[in-house]
Amino acid sequence: MKIAVLGGDGFVGWPTSLHLSDQGHEVHVIDNLSRRWIDAELGVQSLTPMDSIQERCRIWHDVTGRRLHFHLLDLAKEYERLKAWLDEHKPDVVIHFAEQRAAPYSMKTDRHKVYTVTNNMNATHNLLAALVETDIDAHVIHLGTMGVYGYSSVGAAIPEGYLDVTVETLDGGTAKQEILYPTKPGSVYHMTKSMDQILFQFYAQNDGLRITDLHQGIVWGTHTEQTRRHDQLINRFDYDGDYGTVLNRFLIQAAIGYPLTVHGTGGQTRAFIHIQDSVRCIELAMGDAPKAGDRVRIFNQMTETHRIRDLAALIAKLTEAEVLNLPNPRKEAAENDLVVDNAQFLSLGLNPTTLAEGLMEEVVDVARKFAHRIDRSRVPAVSAWTRDLAETVERDPEGRKIRLVS
Amino acid sequence: MKIAVLGGDGFVGWPTSLHLSDQGHEVHVIDNLSRRWIDAELGVQSLTPMDSIQERCRIWHDVTGRRLHFHLLDLAKEYERLKAWLDEHKPDVVIHFAEQRAAPYSMKTDRHKVYTVTNNMNATHNLLAALVETDIDAHVIHLGTMGVYGYSSVGAAIPEGYLDVTVETLDGGTAKQEILYPTKPGSVYHMTKSMDQILFQFYAQNDGLRITDLHQGIVWGTHTEQTRRHDQLINRFDYDGDYGTVLNRFLIQAAIGYPLTVHGTGGQTRAFIHIQDSVRCIELAMGDAPKAGDRVRIFNQMTETHRIRDLAALIAKLTEAEVLNLPNPRKEAAENDLVVDNAQFLSLGLNPTTLAEGLMEEVVDVARKFAHRIDRSRVPAVSAWTRDLAETVERDPEGRKIRLVS
Ligand SMILES: NC(=O)c1ccc[n+]([C@@H]2O[C@H](COP(=O)([O-])OP(=O)(O)OC[C@H]3O[C@@H](n4cnc5c(N)ncnc54)[C@H](O)[C@@H]3O)[C@@H](O)[C@H]2O)c1
Ligand SMILES: NC(=O)c1ccc[n+]([C@@H]2O[C@H](COP(=O)([O-])OP(=O)(O)OC[C@H]3O[C@@H](n4cnc5c(N)ncnc54)[C@H](O)[C@@H]3O)[C@@H](O)[C@H]2O)c1
Repeated sequence: MKIAVLGGDGFVGWPTSLHLSDQGHEVHVIDNLSRRWIDAELGVQSLTPMDSIQERCRIWHDVTGRRLHFHLLDLAKEYERLKAWLDEHKPDVVIHFAEQRAAPYSMKTDRHKVYTVTNNMNATHNLLAALVETDIDAHVIHLGTMGVYGYSSVGAAIPEGYLDVTVETLDGGTAKQEILYPTKPGSVYHMTKSMDQILFQFYAQNDGLRITDLHQGIVWGTHTEQTRRHDQLINRFDYDGDYGTVLNRFLIQAAIGYPLTVHGTGGQTRAFIHIQDSVRCIELAMGDAPKAGDRVRIFNQMTETHRIRDLAALIAKLTEAEVLNLPNPRKEAAENDLVVDNAQFLSLGLNPTTLAEGLMEEVVDVARKFAHRIDRSRVPAVSAWTRDLAETVERDPEGRKIRLVS
Repeated sequence: MKIAVLGGDGFVGWPTSLHLSDQGHEVHVIDNLSRRWIDAELGVQSLTPMDSIQERCRIWHDVTGRRLHFHLLDLAKEYERLKAWLDEHKPDVVIHFAEQRAAPYSMKTDRHKVYTVTNNMNATHNLLAALVETDIDAHVIHLGTMGVYGYSSVGAAIPEGYLDVTVETLDGGTAKQEILYPTKPGSVYHMTKSMDQILFQFYAQNDGLRITDLHQGIVWGTHTEQTRRHDQLINRFDYDGDYGTVLNRFLIQAAIGYPLTVHGTGGQTRAFIHIQDSVRCIELAMGDAPKAGDRVRIFNQMTETHRIRDLAALIAKLTEAEVLNLPNPRKEAAENDLVVDNAQFLSLGLNPTTLAEGLMEEVVDVARKFAHRIDRSRVPAVSAWTRDLAETVERDPEGRKIRLVS
């Protein structure tokens, strides 16, 4: 099949492109390289040494004889070029990773809020409008996030996208109605994903676009079968306060002998999935495309949930690091339960890698191996959700101003 | 109070500005005049002769001694200027009308879809981000639409914004949860209003912004108490196929002796409100502002519902026009019930003008009076919702190609 991977230079997009190319598909990577520019803006870099996308594509060809085609294109700003590209290439599948994806970055300043909304809304909407206009019946697979639901549930399991509700009818009876599971996004980034859902619902209903939306947990792990084949195929590993997820922060802190910094009580529960499982899920979703006229197909793409403090304890045990509780820069519930229904992927044959099995490899093969590249000053998470929280971010539990870097 | 009326040069914004100025408030009209540009793009004009905004403000001053302040500013494209304006003027209330508001226009071509999404999303988000950034605690009153719910209800009354649902909890029990009443927008325009709701929910929750969202029905009528005071204060009256609502189309068709064109069976039910009631509702909403930390306050701003065929029959009776059924260019349910809860405005003292009372004035004082200005070729609604529907738009019920203009 001919597959367009939008955002194919990113953390999940790159291993997905390799995985699908390895299976013999014709893979086109479309990316505006904004993520690399943001590294420059923030003055940070991937822990793993990452080559240019052009060089990575060349190496993949050397190693496997297969070609990856790279196209520099801004989905959000170049509608006409996007349309022309689709019209020329007519992909069978479009996998859409191309959004600004860090919650802390989206909350940094008003400029970052505006950028995230403009970029993400226009990227997704331009894609949908262009598919309708070019009359291309591609299967669109989009990466959404578990985070849209806001972790403030009343203690119910999160279903796969839809909820049946009962409403009172005018004649005094009741009727069942299926609705999109209501979202309550907790950051500007998550808000854009919640808005994406409305775009998808409309274009599936009005134009019969075939759309799968994968509500993904936090992706961890660096290597997949394909990235292991050559040093220069290695995936990016973000550990800075904006793009590094909590797990990566812990791994890096352990590697440099710094305490694992837990925000608040660490009672927040989050969903996780290994990068190898993530690329496999995308393959499984490809094999199970909706038909025109179907509602948007929604999968929960995660394999396990953990409380942040348990995660810290797990890594502390593996690495002998200490744990330090800090004030939380995010506006969120201090403690939450999270139970997620992921029956669909399990029934399609997903066989998960667990944190308990895979984490030691990350500690040894990634965090320790590249520890010399760590910029210690970039590890703390400093983007605060509100003005009030900004005041407390760099204070310890007693309210003393602290510096996290020795 | 100091009030910013965003989109204050438009059909609802202009009489709102006059109404509030008349009550002694300091009113600032902010508008990019895009609506006037769209008139130029489409080659149409308001039925009523409409002066420039600068001239209208001058006349208002001549007639009443009061000042309206006009600022040319694009909310969607000029974030920094918007922020500077807010910072300088620090309004107490911001009334936000500044969006592309015609469903047919939003479906015209892919360019119009992209424009509508970009303009509306950025306008609303820029406003919210700028209020947070400038730390201005203004009451934001936004105009949304009844149409977000998509008229495909299972026969339940549309509540004022929120719905209580019962979900199964993990411990086998049940819990009540309040959710935003689920939307199912039927056009790109309506979709942007559904996305606005998510923006409001987030900024109310994260930043304590005080927001009222008025889900308005179709506004009809031309005059308010203030627009009547001088010929040159007259409000705009759109009758073209894109911006003219169904009621205006009927009025114009009757005035030029053309049959009233009903799309499909005319079994669609819609909600209506007179422009005089609309400006009064905004005044009432101003007087009932939410507190910081409150959820978004949502009102249904409409006073009556009618089936399109009944509306046609009513106007046919007043004017002796005939009725002609045509294929429907929209993708929508052929027949729908619509019952809307509007208890909040009634309890605040709204005393509605009904269609039965007010319609004859529109026929005589507006449609007939300005009939010489009608461009007959611009009356038909021709923007089709999908490729397939585009094929049938200009055919009569037997499938014969027709021309609507004699
Ligand atoms: N990484 C995670 O833990 C995780 C979890 C849940 C969901 N997701 C979702 O998966 C997707 C991919 O995440 P990731 O971690 O690979 O992010 P990433 O930032 O590493 O990759 C995104 C890629 O998209 C590109 N991009 C952004 N805007 C673009 C535009 N307008 N035009 C063209 N390219 C553009 C960037 O340059 C980048 O290469 C995102 O949508 C993200 O929200 C990721
Ligand atoms: N007219 C109706 O029947 C009706 C019904 C329901 C809801 N509404 C809502 O009420 C609001 C006003 O409707 P209307 O009929 O007065 O529309 P309108 O098009 O006459 O007025 C909108 C005004 O906003 C301005 N505007 C648009 N984008 C802007 C931007 N980016 N920056 C600055 N100004 C901008 C336009 O120039 C115009 O003057 C809209 O949001 C609409 O969705 C209207």
